[in-house]
Amino acid sequence: MTAAHSGHSLHTWQRALRIAQHGEAADLLLTNARIVNVFSGEIDSGNVAIADGRIVGYGPDYIAATEQIDLQGAFLAPSFIDGHIHTESSLLWVTQFARAVVPRGTGAVITDPHELVNVGGLDAFDAIVAASRDLPLGVHVTVPSCVPASPRESAGAEMTPERIATALANPAAVGLGEMMNFPGVLAGEPVIWERMQRANGRRRDGHAPGVIGRALDAYALSGITSDHESTTLDEARDKLRRGMLLMIREGSTEHNLLELLPLVNDMTWARCCFASDDRDCSTLLHDGHIDATLRLAVSAGLDPIRAIRMATFNVADYWGLTGVGAIAPGYRANLVVLDDLADFRVRAVYYDGALVAQDGVALFDVATSVPDVLRNTMHVAPDALTPDALRISANGDEIDAVGVIDGQIVTQHLRVQPTVEDGAVQADPARDLLKLVCVERHHATGNIGVGLLQGFGLQRGAVASSIAHDAHNIVAIGASDADLLLAIQTVIDLQGGLAAVADGQVLATMALPIAGILSEQPLEVAAAEYATMETTAHDLGSTLHSPFGLLAFMALSVIPAARVTDQGFITL
Amino acid sequence: MTAAHSGHSLHTWQRALRIAQHGEAADLLLTNARIVNVFSGEIDSGNVAIADGRIVGYGPDYIAATEQIDLQGAFLAPSFIDGHIHTESSLLWVTQFARAVVPRGTGAVITDPHELVNVGGLDAFDAIVAASRDLPLGVHVTVPSCVPASPRESAGAEMTPERIATALANPAAVGLGEMMNFPGVLAGEPVIWERMQRANGRRRDGHAPGVIGRALDAYALSGITSDHESTTLDEARDKLRRGMLLMIREGSTEHNLLELLPLVNDMTWARCCFASDDRDCSTLLHDGHIDATLRLAVSAGLDPIRAIRMATFNVADYWGLTGVGAIAPGYRANLVVLDDLADFRVRAVYYDGALVAQDGVALFDVATSVPDVLRNTMHVAPDALTPDALRISANGDEIDAVGVIDGQIVTQHLRVQPTVEDGAVQADPARDLLKLVCVERHHATGNIGVGLLQGFGLQRGAVASSIAHDAHNIVAIGASDADLLLAIQTVIDLQGGLAAVADGQVLATMALPIAGILSEQPLEVAAAEYATMETTAHDLGSTLHSPFGLLAFMALSVIPAARVTDQGFITL
Repeated sequence: MTAAHSGHSLHTWQRALRIAQHGEAADLLLTNARIVNVFSGEIDSGNVAIADGRIVGYGPDYIAATEQIDLQGAFLAPSFIDGHIHTESSLLWVTQFARAVVPRGTGAVITDPHELVNVGGLDAFDAIVAASRDLPLGVHVTVPSCVPASPRESAGAEMTPERIATALANPAAVGLGEMMNFPGVLAGEPVIWERMQRANGRRRDGHAPGVIGRALDAYALSGITSDHESTTLDEARDKLRRGMLLMIREGSTEHNLLELLPLVNDMTWARCCFASDDRDCSTLLHDGHIDATLRLAVSAGLDPIRAIRMATFNVADYWGLTGVGAIAPGYRANLVVLDDLADFRVRAVYYDGALVAQDGVALFDVATSVPDVLRNTMHVAPDALTPDALRISANGDEIDAVGVIDGQIVTQHLRVQPTVEDGAVQADPARDLLKLVCVERHHATGNIGVGLLQGFGLQRGAVASSIAHDAHNIVAIGASDADLLLAIQTVIDLQGGLAAVADGQVLATMALPIAGILSEQPLEVAAAEYATMETTAHDLGSTLHSPFGLLAFMALSVIPAARVTDQGFITL
Repeated sequence: MTAAHSGHSLHTWQRALRIAQHGEAADLLLTNARIVNVFSGEIDSGNVAIADGRIVGYGPDYIAATEQIDLQGAFLAPSFIDGHIHTESSLLWVTQFARAVVPRGTGAVITDPHELVNVGGLDAFDAIVAASRDLPLGVHVTVPSCVPASPRESAGAEMTPERIATALANPAAVGLGEMMNFPGVLAGEPVIWERMQRANGRRRDGHAPGVIGRALDAYALSGITSDHESTTLDEARDKLRRGMLLMIREGSTEHNLLELLPLVNDMTWARCCFASDDRDCSTLLHDGHIDATLRLAVSAGLDPIRAIRMATFNVADYWGLTGVGAIAPGYRANLVVLDDLADFRVRAVYYDGALVAQDGVALFDVATSVPDVLRNTMHVAPDALTPDALRISANGDEIDAVGVIDGQIVTQHLRVQPTVEDGAVQADPARDLLKLVCVERHHATGNIGVGLLQGFGLQRGAVASSIAHDAHNIVAIGASDADLLLAIQTVIDLQGGLAAVADGQVLATMALPIAGILSEQPLEVAAAEYATMETTAHDLGSTLHSPFGLLAFMALSVIPAARVTDQGFITL
């Protein structure tokens, strides 16, 4: 918790006092505003006086300022705050992420950088914090609690209790990140206890999909006080009743708002907020960020002032961010100008009193350099990528396979009779049997896992990705060993990225040189590149809605039922 | 902020998980409860399972426990929390205060010990914290910000910025105490800045009576986020709109609830709570504490569940107390059993799962010893108390006098033609002109202030008190110099207390040996003694509602319009 006026010096404090009481000129006056007051729940009218980046006060009596901007009756709201997100899901580096979301009215996010930290550990954590420092966006971080996701995949780093404590001491850290290992919590594992102890006195974010009833008692009594995973009304009500802040999620693939909105009422609104969790670049570009969630919520009947509170003060208050989330004396002038409270089209955005976006366009530049520590993170054992490494010996029996389900990240565990040639299992696109490969790429261990997969639909070629939740090794699916090796090598040569190849030719690539998981391009470019990758995968025959989207989950060791990690085929 | 489960050890955590999930026996099961859920705003039914002092969960499925108590459909609520109080106003030492309020359902208070600290400084602060440690009452302290109240009265101690920082580091400290010197804030005084800086990142409690509009902008932008001084709807609305937590006060003399209750609505309830500020022993005995405020609020139409939230979670959440203020997994089992949600008669009180009061009777003993540092605090210069010290020389002109207004602590500044004898001003009870004397008693400086006072009504004798806000010197009012000296000497001999004398005889005394301001008796005895003092003052002719109550404010240097401090007659 930082004090509302802790950004003041004695001089600026005294100046603000004079502006408030004695009519001294402010820096900026936003006149004729309709001001959303998240404390009273009312719309007030007047002029908002801003000095040294902070709100002095508002009302009709504030008339003197160096600069005046007539809002002509537009609405003025606190800028929006996302209660839980992973900025990595946008595929953008945090500076480009800011350029994407600030024009949408986002003033702050609470982000859990666990994708980056799976690759780069504490160095990656420090890097995103450092890169965020001068952005016109409050980037508050939770400390990843579950890195690696499990011992069954080899991540680049581990968040030990000691490292968690180190990261929590960072001033940008607001608490412990989502405790995804809920089975470990429910089982009372001492290692979980160790990590949570490091966050005593801090917020602990939750992640308990489908956990209800007495299991939820167990999860909540462990001191985890928020959750964004509810998908049904009953589940969400169970969490709300146990004192967990209900973070209603609207992500790219997870849309929970319409289901959960009936829970928000006169008795509960103070215990609810919004979170986007994962929003990809396409969603950010075409739909938006919290502005889109507000639009949807209000169109579904939520009172717009209540919706804005949930998207502003409720989040700030829970996470202990003071001086943001409201339009009130001493608060930072982080503001959005809106033409109405239905469409939530953002006309202008202010951050610390400076105009930082207008009509959807960011008015600020960001550093083009990315920290070295996040570059050149692909470390594959030099001689590992041989045709032999992809060989699956056949003995005539049925073998394990991963069954893909379109639109879901859960998979099926299949047993199939493989197509065999020269004593080895072959990909057989005619039967929709492809090879699924995972190559360890952090520590050049030479680990390569190989298995079969059904349901992806490639007719030829291969696709590869160094986005591979959560450990972000290289995951590839292909119809031939040669194309698989080419796709994987292409990703390595890119120092991380996506590749689609066929018949020995590279058809399309997207470079993700930042930790192997993020583009360094701006939103529009990244979104276009990603769309091309998906189109190419479709051209190769995949019938999935999002082939690269699903590819990224084929090595995730904590979601049922079957995967191939760098350690081989596993079932869950 | 302390984590919900930070009181757990690994062992008790794992045990709680087993109780929640596997039916292992809890320590205590409160069955057939109607449970007030402050998160959902609903009443739930079921059995509440408690283990190791904490709530595991509730519902019909919890059935196994070492001990079961059938609540037979009674209501179970979180125990009540007072958002702002000075326990000293009860005249009780904090241990006896706990015995007084715990049976009323109070589970925690946020107290600003500024009366004690005016006498004893940091030692007194540490003493009340230490004495509170093992009570079945959470005593959370704010660090007094305005000691002394002004340079125009001589307190026993000063809270310098350094001492404020020291006290804030105490784990019992939840923030900076009420910033009473609002003129100093509004004027931007560097010394105020210094003190507030020490509380960066901490809550700062407010005290801004009558401050509204742009002056309130100035006060709020200084980072003060709560206030309990609102007496009118407009004032309270102004504070609420500026983001200050609205603490609705119901004290012994300040009754603001009925005036302010219309502000509590569907849009605002999360920003409102209750505070008693000053509740004397008589009010606690005959009316109660937060239970009385709830009774009044509900009788005036407030929804009872909403009232309970305001008296529990809202306070805990604002002050960053986690694990209290709700009935939910992991929360401390600090609970009240109520027969209904109208009378709020408290049948039983639990603290950390232990029954600590039943049917209005405290079931716990408290230490009878009081820290030595709070004893023998009367230090008057040995030869100061002479008849000559009370002499006011007359020169024939009108002189200043304090005009008492019954029922108010503001006074009038009068000019009167004194009665003179032998060249000296005399008390003249026939004209209701009495002498008002203030004797410095902390550092034996010999300071004695003397003046005239009208409106108190004594016909003979004198009254004296070492309760004298805020510096707590000895203040006395009398019809004769001899009786004044006797009354003052009697207070000194008591090592603090109240005295009423007449014609050279001591008529009644009440010992206040703890810092000169607190009794060491339990509630009933202290209340009876105090009533005797008031009766005696009435017998001596005072027509005031509360002669000793008003006497205690006659040396307060920060309220208009005239006073006599140890430094002499002052006007404001």
